[in-house]
Amino acid sequence: MKFYVRLRFASGVAILLGLALATQAIPQTDLLPSWNEGAAKKAIFEFVRVTTDKASSRFVPPEERIATFDQDGTLWVEHPMYTQVVYCLDRVPAVVKVKPELANVEPFKTVLSGDRDAIAKLSTDDFLKILAATMTGMSVDVFKAEAKKWLETARDPRWKRHYTELTYVPMLELLKYLRANGYRTYIVTGGGQDFVRVYSEEIYGIPPEQVVGTASGTKYSYDQNGKPFLTKEPKLLLNDNNAGKPEGIHLMIGRRPYAAFGNSTGDRQMLEYTKSGDGDRLTMLVLHDDANREYAYGPALGLPDTKVGTFTQALYDEAQKQGWLVISMKSDWRRVFAFDK
Amino acid sequence: MKFYVRLRFASGVAILLGLALATQAIPQTDLLPSWNEGAAKKAIFEFVRVTTDKASSRFVPPEERIATFDQDGTLWVEHPMYTQVVYCLDRVPAVVKVKPELANVEPFKTVLSGDRDAIAKLSTDDFLKILAATMTGMSVDVFKAEAKKWLETARDPRWKRHYTELTYVPMLELLKYLRANGYRTYIVTGGGQDFVRVYSEEIYGIPPEQVVGTASGTKYSYDQNGKPFLTKEPKLLLNDNNAGKPEGIHLMIGRRPYAAFGNSTGDRQMLEYTKSGDGDRLTMLVLHDDANREYAYGPALGLPDTKVGTFTQALYDEAQKQGWLVISMKSDWRRVFAFDK
Repeated sequence: MKFYVRLRFASGVAILLGLALATQAIPQTDLLPSWNEGAAKKAIFEFVRVTTDKASSRFVPPEERIATFDQDGTLWVEHPMYTQVVYCLDRVPAVVKVKPELANVEPFKTVLSGDRDAIAKLSTDDFLKILAATMTGMSVDVFKAEAKKWLETARDPRWKRHYTELTYVPMLELLKYLRANGYRTYIVTGGGQDFVRVYSEEIYGIPPEQVVGTASGTKYSYDQNGKPFLTKEPKLLLNDNNAGKPEGIHLMIGRRPYAAFGNSTGDRQMLEYTKSGDGDRLTMLVLHDDANREYAYGPALGLPDTKVGTFTQALYDEAQKQGWLVISMKSDWRRVFAFDK
Repeated sequence: MKFYVRLRFASGVAILLGLALATQAIPQTDLLPSWNEGAAKKAIFEFVRVTTDKASSRFVPPEERIATFDQDGTLWVEHPMYTQVVYCLDRVPAVVKVKPELANVEPFKTVLSGDRDAIAKLSTDDFLKILAATMTGMSVDVFKAEAKKWLETARDPRWKRHYTELTYVPMLELLKYLRANGYRTYIVTGGGQDFVRVYSEEIYGIPPEQVVGTASGTKYSYDQNGKPFLTKEPKLLLNDNNAGKPEGIHLMIGRRPYAAFGNSTGDRQMLEYTKSGDGDRLTMLVLHDDANREYAYGPALGLPDTKVGTFTQALYDEAQKQGWLVISMKSDWRRVFAFDK
């Protein structure tokens, strides 16, 4: 590269410095500083390079650059219990206060007892009853205000931190890096769409319209002053897990993603759907193999299966077969949380 | 405004020209050239001015700038029959070819007869059967390809134009003007979401993820090679009409719009919902009062009610009461179609 310095009042030193800079390669800033060098980091850089280089045969036009992220276990901690489930359990006393007759009805009675072992043994049907009682029946504005307040006060038992601090720094860097390269980042979560939308913009930089989640219907009506409002109804519209993820992506986005990130069997179909598109597609799974800094779980590690985020041997085998890259939390991540030293 | 001209080699003429420009108001380009001067045009400019001026108390942050548009009768012609209904009727012979047993079953028999009067008399249930037979049961990719092909060949009977040419130029200008001011423009239509997404980007500049419409579910499965695909199912997820519009907006966008545009009773709740938010909200209804250049219909004009786009007297009265502005196609629009002279 040649260039001419023409600064009328420039000193000789400044000119020499300028020439020195011009003939040296300027060191690039590492945009994923919390990732260790390795196959995962390399694959991310390579995917972005080929899909954003106009000269590449695998160039992806900006309007088609969609990247979808599972949330629980992919962007933040899901163990030992999904944050949203903790929220619903914490809301039970307030619900019972309004409807005292529930105090002696299961599963509310068990939740109120505070007996952790008994709560852990509740059935899926029991949890659906708790979800319906705590996530529906109020206006969308009231729901949002209640969830926001809880998130500002509740703390997880292990780190004594707000739940919104339990996000993975390497994934936050990845979100930013993809956005800086024209990718629109979406959350595609089995969690409640309205719940995740409360904090997604603040903690992930992902606006509400880019959150696809399990969604119940709403009902439009008017208050006593004729002002309209929407009430959350206990009618499931989209169960955004497993096959519900590609179905939800079609409903809410209408385009097949070029990149998808997950961590459990619930993300399998989203990764299959993404990978089966034409051209370059990046599909990755976060493996929780770091008991020290976070957690280690899942049969793929020979560890016990858990109720949340199951990374089974079958999922691991499919990842190998389909070319999905496995991110080892232990070896691929230099840092896990922002509060880590 | 003061400024200093310091051009070393500038001629006296250039300096004089520069000073002349600096002291004169530079004439602004009219960004809505197909709109006549009047209350509607003025309201649009004023709304954009106060919501995008940081010094204004009614400033709206860019991330909250959402504008929603009904499609049929608001962005393109809906009379005498919704384009999508024409498409479904046109698809019936192909459906019967695959399932010959339908040829003697109503309502398919009537559609195949080509008897326009009899077709016009079909019931809502009949139309739902036609919709289910022509819009579901195929993969989303096959549906998209078929609809695209039809749009490239079919022509409307009055203007002998492709349906995609029957968009209103003033509304296309409005979409662009709002986008140029940081508003994200969404279609919120009673029409099929998948159908509108086929052409929305090309004709309106609105990408698929910003189309909210009546939506059926899809089903995820695999072909004989193990490649996943989505099939359109005859299961209604969202009826995006009337109260379904604000409900659909909450589901798909998760924010209340600052501007909303419609033309019929099906848009009433969307306009109510938009207008009842805090701050400045722009709500407008297109009135079809131009039989010469387009159509004139609706009881609000003393004209007969029609099956499509009903602008009733009650809607007109509510518009007056709520402060929704009525756009008269006849007097507010200088030009209707791009092909108008």
